Amino acid sequence: MRKTRVCIVGLGLLGGSYAMALSQKGHQVTAIDKNPEALEFGLNKGWIQAGATADFQGLLREAELVVLCLYPGDMLPWLQENQGALSPGCLITDVCGVKLGIAEEAQALLRPDVEFVPAHPMAGRERLGIWNADCAIFAPANFIITPTPRNTPEAIARIEDLARELGFAHIARLSPAEHDEMIGYVSQLTHAIAVSLMLANDNPRLAEYTGDSFRDLTRIARIDAGLWSKLFLHNRQILTAQIDRFSQALQNLRQQVDEGNEEALVELFHISSHRRSWFDRC
Amino acid sequence: MRKTRVCIVGLGLLGGSYAMALSQKGHQVTAIDKNPEALEFGLNKGWIQAGATADFQGLLREAELVVLCLYPGDMLPWLQENQGALSPGCLITDVCGVKLGIAEEAQALLRPDVEFVPAHPMAGRERLGIWNADCAIFAPANFIITPTPRNTPEAIARIEDLARELGFAHIARLSPAEHDEMIGYVSQLTHAIAVSLMLANDNPRLAEYTGDSFRDLTRIARIDAGLWSKLFLHNRQILTAQIDRFSQALQNLRQQVDEGNEEALVELFHISSHRRSWFDRC
Repeated sequence: MRKTRVCIVGLGLLGGSYAMALSQKGHQVTAIDKNPEALEFGLNKGWIQAGATADFQGLLREAELVVLCLYPGDMLPWLQENQGALSPGCLITDVCGVKLGIAEEAQALLRPDVEFVPAHPMAGRERLGIWNADCAIFAPANFIITPTPRNTPEAIARIEDLARELGFAHIARLSPAEHDEMIGYVSQLTHAIAVSLMLANDNPRLAEYTGDSFRDLTRIARIDAGLWSKLFLHNRQILTAQIDRFSQALQNLRQQVDEGNEEALVELFHISSHRRSWFDRC
Repeated sequence: MRKTRVCIVGLGLLGGSYAMALSQKGHQVTAIDKNPEALEFGLNKGWIQAGATADFQGLLREAELVVLCLYPGDMLPWLQENQGALSPGCLITDVCGVKLGIAEEAQALLRPDVEFVPAHPMAGRERLGIWNADCAIFAPANFIITPTPRNTPEAIARIEDLARELGFAHIARLSPAEHDEMIGYVSQLTHAIAVSLMLANDNPRLAEYTGDSFRDLTRIARIDAGLWSKLFLHNRQILTAQIDRFSQALQNLRQQVDEGNEEALVELFHISSHRRSWFDRC
């Protein structure tokens, strides 16, 4: 992508990793964050060239690309309040893990001379904050763009360029509704299960006897409580429906165990083994 | 451990990995298996010095240590039928993932001049058979011995020696009941969840958008249907109780999502994050 002036709003794990990747590629990166220590860290690392906790209109005015790394509920108010400072032609994108109620709504409230292309980089870590930022997390991950009919092909292409510049291996497009349905299953339900598995037992001694299976299943039970509570609530309807589908599958399995139905269990295991093969990496 | 003549009964993934490890340490290893190709593979690798599919009384007579790598339901019948061929003083152990209904029952039916020390090496792979055997799987895993009051300290110590010889990092003791309770949670419930997560959705396209979390949670959904259906049914009561505890935790989380109770969700996530830290490797 051509050299671009990027402003990152929210310099946490993801924002910091964007800043790290983009500064290394020679782009000019600035950042806005409430926490001066995060800005200080980014400045010291050389990942940002300037930062501000307030009075950041100048940083926004200079930006050709603004990346919103905010909680889902903070996106619309932030745009409402700050869009006046953007320069005409500014491209805006985000990293938010939910899209319904945000993507089209953000576009509806924006000035006609700036464009918002919603995106979800499906990368993360258990450890939070710019202190744990590392653009290596992008390489194996998926970058999902969720364009709406309001988006121009040019702007979508520029965000695809951004994804490649960040190092994502796989870039895909989904509608906001398809995205939230997909994420409700592969990400949110998955986190809900991991958390519930930890909550189902309070015996710390079990750790002595635990194998890799349990560790793998509960790795994401260490969770950013502030962020994920908001993601879950934002996607409430889809997530509860996904939990219900999963619970039905688990109850069916439980019933076969309870009834001693070995043949039915073998059949369930064959289906799950077959489906899991779809998810093997090449 | 001093040089020992070992006979492995059931030369699959685990039996094969035992044979590999023990032959490399200079022990004399033989094997019994229904499948001549498994024996052939072990012979060609140099992991066993002799093998038999039938008429194996001679192999048993020579053995100082017999390792049973059989399905849970096959253990007692096998011992009943073949204990006559064992030499006095023979030590017997196993690798079975469930212990209640087997450990004490096996001891009750055995001749008084041989001793059975039940054990569960908590190691495995998604790929089965001696063709995928690799004693490297033991290094990070736990070896659980489930002695009963009938066991002698000497025999237990010899099985601990065996575990060290195989390369297990962590050797622990539990009663058969404690073992099955623990395994019902950290292993069987975990597999039931992974399988159910795969069963809850039949859309292969989701693989395109899947992150590591989902892959980690479903890795074990590729499952040995024949073995795990038997393990689940053998531990039926404990497993269904574990599924019920987990389902209750998941339903509680679902309720907080449904009611939009952000504060309660944050609290649940804090508990799960805290508990998960118990399971961090040093």
